[in-house]
Amino acid sequence: MRTMATLGRLGIGLTVIALLSAVAEASLCSINGIPLVRNISELPQDNYGRGGLSHITVAGSVLHGMKEIEVWLQTFAPGSHTPIHRHSCEEVFVVLKGSGTLYLAPNSHVKYPGTPEEFPIFSNSTFHIPVNDAHQVWNTNEREDLQVLVIISRPPVKVFIYEDWSMPHTAAKLKFPYHWDEECLLTTPPSAKDEL
Amino acid sequence: MRTMATLGRLGIGLTVIALLSAVAEASLCSINGIPLVRNISELPQDNYGRGGLSHITVAGSVLHGMKEIEVWLQTFAPGSHTPIHRHSCEEVFVVLKGSGTLYLAPNSHVKYPGTPEEFPIFSNSTFHIPVNDAHQVWNTNEREDLQVLVIISRPPVKVFIYEDWSMPHTAAKLKFPYHWDEECLLTTPPSAKDEL
Repeated sequence: MRTMATLGRLGIGLTVIALLSAVAEASLCSINGIPLVRNISELPQDNYGRGGLSHITVAGSVLHGMKEIEVWLQTFAPGSHTPIHRHSCEEVFVVLKGSGTLYLAPNSHVKYPGTPEEFPIFSNSTFHIPVNDAHQVWNTNEREDLQVLVIISRPPVKVFIYEDWSMPHTAAKLKFPYHWDEECLLTTPPSAKDEL
Repeated sequence: MRTMATLGRLGIGLTVIALLSAVAEASLCSINGIPLVRNISELPQDNYGRGGLSHITVAGSVLHGMKEIEVWLQTFAPGSHTPIHRHSCEEVFVVLKGSGTLYLAPNSHVKYPGTPEEFPIFSNSTFHIPVNDAHQVWNTNEREDLQVLVIISRPPVKVFIYEDWSMPHTAAKLKFPYHWDEECLLTTPPSAKDEL
């Protein structure tokens, strides 16, 4: 006999992505003054220049002083997706809502990522990305948002971005700090943990 | 204007905690053969000898080869709770369902934890535990399960357990491997990362 666990849905509307609360704005970039127990509904969300995305840093290096783990809540509108990218940190996804496709180049440790494998992802599923494998998460469901909790190690994340699956690793573009850390990380002094 | 995000509920019944599926049993302690994308409904759940608990290792060191982060889904029946404990890893909670109380001794770096502070926790909230602070999570809601996603760094977790808040640190009991890792970790060779 098997018990059924059905992950619920976070009621975040993508139409209101860029609207930040006054409280959230006041605490942006400030570790001091942020309460220990935080209502996720009141945390800042933004698309950070990526169409169709809502990103919330649930627990973050720059915002909350995390040193070893970081947690994001991300919602992808139908048709939206991450870039093709890789990173040396570990990453775990928990799918809360919707469905989509994980593209993963499991043998990308040669000169370029190569043709990815496709994995269906669905509500109530989990998966992790092997370190340094190029990957892309895509909401391939035309009718429903895809919502995921994302956990990474060794924040803040440092990402190498590819224009396509045949781009050489040497041509991939390092993006650091990543969009959601830019505003705050660039205003705080670097630490010893910031090296690649 | 503030957008509302409401975390959903995982429909796990505590009455069926110990019933493992045949598929899940077959893959227990086996990293090979576990699919990359896993249905959380089909993962093993157990109370591991702790009354009122349902624990699922969503992504684990021993089960899934994670080295830097680990993710658990835990459900506490009304009145059930964690032990008073501390650990040197980082820990983030995301409350999916129910409510309860976090007890935290924020100045526990003296001879014993001391009287904890109390923080109400609630559905759709998040919090993290400062490294090495003694703490306890308690479902103080008499009518509803408390369900949380738990993320830790540097797995497998090594926990020091206290009988009460005035127990000296020197008397706290090291529990390693922890209950959910015992069966598998004790059958696999130690790695260089296993030291405290």
